[in-house]
Amino acid sequence: MPRTWAISGVDLHLDLDGPRVRAGLEAGLREAVSSGRLRAGSRLPSSRALAVDLGIARNTVAEAYGQLVAEGWLTAVQGSGTRVAARVEPGTDGAAAASAAPPLRIRYDLRPGSPDVSAFPRAGWLRAARRALAEAPFGALEYSDPRGRPELRAALAEYLARARGVRASPERIMICSGFTHAFSLLCQALRAGGAGVLAIEEYGLPSVPAAASAAGLALQMLPVDADGAVVTDLGEAGAAVLTPAHQFPLGVSLAPGRRSAVVQWALAGERMIVEDDYDGEFRYDRHPVGALQALAPDRVIYAGTASKTLAPGLRLAWLVLPPGLIEPLVALRLRSDQHTGVLDQLTLAELIRSGAYDRHVRRSRLAYRRRRDRLITALRRRAPEVRVAGIAAGLHAVIELPAGRGEEEVVARAAERGLGLTGLASFGACSRRQRPEALVLGYAKPPEHAFTGALARLVAVLTEDDPPVSSGPAPQAPRPARGRTARRS
Amino acid sequence: MPRTWAISGVDLHLDLDGPRVRAGLEAGLREAVSSGRLRAGSRLPSSRALAVDLGIARNTVAEAYGQLVAEGWLTAVQGSGTRVAARVEPGTDGAAAASAAPPLRIRYDLRPGSPDVSAFPRAGWLRAARRALAEAPFGALEYSDPRGRPELRAALAEYLARARGVRASPERIMICSGFTHAFSLLCQALRAGGAGVLAIEEYGLPSVPAAASAAGLALQMLPVDADGAVVTDLGEAGAAVLTPAHQFPLGVSLAPGRRSAVVQWALAGERMIVEDDYDGEFRYDRHPVGALQALAPDRVIYAGTASKTLAPGLRLAWLVLPPGLIEPLVALRLRSDQHTGVLDQLTLAELIRSGAYDRHVRRSRLAYRRRRDRLITALRRRAPEVRVAGIAAGLHAVIELPAGRGEEEVVARAAERGLGLTGLASFGACSRRQRPEALVLGYAKPPEHAFTGALARLVAVLTEDDPPVSSGPAPQAPRPARGRTARRS
Repeated sequence: MPRTWAISGVDLHLDLDGPRVRAGLEAGLREAVSSGRLRAGSRLPSSRALAVDLGIARNTVAEAYGQLVAEGWLTAVQGSGTRVAARVEPGTDGAAAASAAPPLRIRYDLRPGSPDVSAFPRAGWLRAARRALAEAPFGALEYSDPRGRPELRAALAEYLARARGVRASPERIMICSGFTHAFSLLCQALRAGGAGVLAIEEYGLPSVPAAASAAGLALQMLPVDADGAVVTDLGEAGAAVLTPAHQFPLGVSLAPGRRSAVVQWALAGERMIVEDDYDGEFRYDRHPVGALQALAPDRVIYAGTASKTLAPGLRLAWLVLPPGLIEPLVALRLRSDQHTGVLDQLTLAELIRSGAYDRHVRRSRLAYRRRRDRLITALRRRAPEVRVAGIAAGLHAVIELPAGRGEEEVVARAAERGLGLTGLASFGACSRRQRPEALVLGYAKPPEHAFTGALARLVAVLTEDDPPVSSGPAPQAPRPARGRTARRS
Repeated sequence: MPRTWAISGVDLHLDLDGPRVRAGLEAGLREAVSSGRLRAGSRLPSSRALAVDLGIARNTVAEAYGQLVAEGWLTAVQGSGTRVAARVEPGTDGAAAASAAPPLRIRYDLRPGSPDVSAFPRAGWLRAARRALAEAPFGALEYSDPRGRPELRAALAEYLARARGVRASPERIMICSGFTHAFSLLCQALRAGGAGVLAIEEYGLPSVPAAASAAGLALQMLPVDADGAVVTDLGEAGAAVLTPAHQFPLGVSLAPGRRSAVVQWALAGERMIVEDDYDGEFRYDRHPVGALQALAPDRVIYAGTASKTLAPGLRLAWLVLPPGLIEPLVALRLRSDQHTGVLDQLTLAELIRSGAYDRHVRRSRLAYRRRRDRLITALRRRAPEVRVAGIAAGLHAVIELPAGRGEEEVVARAAERGLGLTGLASFGACSRRQRPEALVLGYAKPPEHAFTGALARLVAVLTEDDPPVSSGPAPQAPRPARGRTARRS
């Protein structure tokens, strides 16, 4: 239930129950700024003061502030605190309306979720766009099949079979506008198809439970251990969402026995598995584990994305659907957005067809592997007491903090140095009992030239010898033996 | 309630109640084909036989067949009837999967809803894309503000103020993936904000009532006469969707008195108006009527689109939002699709900024005006008994059929000549009582080289002297004096 709180003298309606306290806080602040109730230049309380006031963790407030700074709603200036950004006031009209974003405080960004977008192959993309537009029939610019352009579905069917072992054919593929979009549609279709409960991993993207709840699905949390999600008790769930190749964010793979078990569970009833293969292209120690989907193409919905291989701003993702879900999803698209824009689809199809996509993925894999190695080396040498996990694949690692250091304090310290970090708490729907204080580190994100600086600041923050005593509770619970060490995972 | 019908020996679950009989039929057929229950090559019953069987209009069946042919699910070959298209069967995997679409039967297309996409400025678009990508900061490829890129919102704020008199500022603009997407989001936000009933024009896009119903909104139908939608009795509606500049599909403008009246209605309570300005750029007799939004920017949600000015396949539209709706829509985007893809946004911003967008709109306006004049001249000379209405603006006209001719028969006759036509019934949620038999003619759609052929076929179909006696009921009701003649509207 939303409740009313006064912040900087302004009443805000904040929904701080539910599993997404931070989202509720962000939404309330955004609304207050966009409606003009919190005026430009207004100073917000410190994250510490507001946390006490609202009875929530300081880290949550700090991360909400950080997110709104990144979105341009707030500014944070050293020594001046956090203020509402200067912006054209709602109600002000006219052509002179400016859109100048406030300067960002975060200059070195190791928050997870994004690849190095400075390496986006702009020239290659434009070449492919030129070729694709030259070859596209007129009809390609009309309303399209809700599943997307046939050129891209054909290219992806071939690519996914080759690169990820997916059993795909073009007519079973649907192009969506990013994974969040694909997943939101799936939740609606699963709910309409009779599913009442969705099992999700206890750690994951915050948009996953948000979309599921919005579709009317109840949630069941699956614990995650060193073998991936625990799938032995799926209870009443009608569907389960998994990240089998590389659990997000913990980084473990789903063990072979669990892969079989969860597929058997799906086959034993009218149950579905959503396989979120968000970074399956990036495996460093050996050939990637093939997609779970190949084990049961009629029970596993495969979801892939260009957000990690190219850029999240593209908003391109794809589903490989069991036959029974094609029509419900087509019907949903027709009344919700018709289809994803065709120009990026045609361009990506040409990029894949020409081999440029594979070359870009290979180049990126090498670059991220080098960064991962530099990260491990730097931490071993300079901060040997931290443990690094989840680094066999993907674009992020989990950094377990040394005893006595807390996520909130480390994130706040880093922000003071212009370094963006994210605590594991941002991705956990469960309580912090029985898990270590940790960071989820997106080492792929900074541009190449900024990686050295980011790493230096990370080491400095982790090895600081004067952590403030009042900065969040030190971890008391014993660390579970999850094997999340640099050697094993 | 869906019921089960046997078609070609296969049980189909069809939802033929509700206002969208055709959509229910299409969905059922798509599902049967995609699931493989209707196998490739299977012959479907004739539209006449199926219509009798289901107790619905033959036109509805014919149009559903036509839609599914256009989407590649069915093929229609002269003399061989309508069959399920050859396609890779669900469950068939492998890289060789072909995506060859069956040849389309419609060679000349005068169905409404699309501009001449063969005139899409491919070279200009690529030039703008190159410049936009060269100038975009790295961060532009990251996750974006859910409202869209600031470059495009700034360009649109200036353009909409200048071209449509909209009171817009960048922070009130949200970029969406087409009008259907924008409208579907709006319905969800209006419903969450407490609206229970949405008033819609009795004629309009089928996706409008579909999206509203999906969001849980009840519908109230507004009659449309020569002065546009009748807004005197808005009953319990919490919001109303209007096409004030050019009613779709009837083509009339909302009269000045009604513009004031509906704005007063909105201001008198917590009520909203959605202004669907789908083709406001195209007015032929005088300067376009400015947007209704300028009368009450806090009560009118303005919706514009690139689907008519550039191409529907782009899937780009924009909302100008009252302040109170910004945060709810931002929250919806964060859990449903994050934001619209950035590359097309950056490109369109550059196209507008450089003046190329305005030049393209001007060129298109001249070309469509010439086509409209040719259509009117041809019909006056060759088929003087038909009345042409709604031609002062936009990309379509309403052609009232001469006495004794019915929509279904004319659409079927045209299809035999390879000419795509649409009956007014496709856009009407109300009964056919008290309205003439008519076509909604999309004269902008054919490529320039095909327009002459399309016009010749249209005239031939309209002047045929042997309309079959059994082809649908002849209109019995008196035509209402709606003033929909070439001179007035």
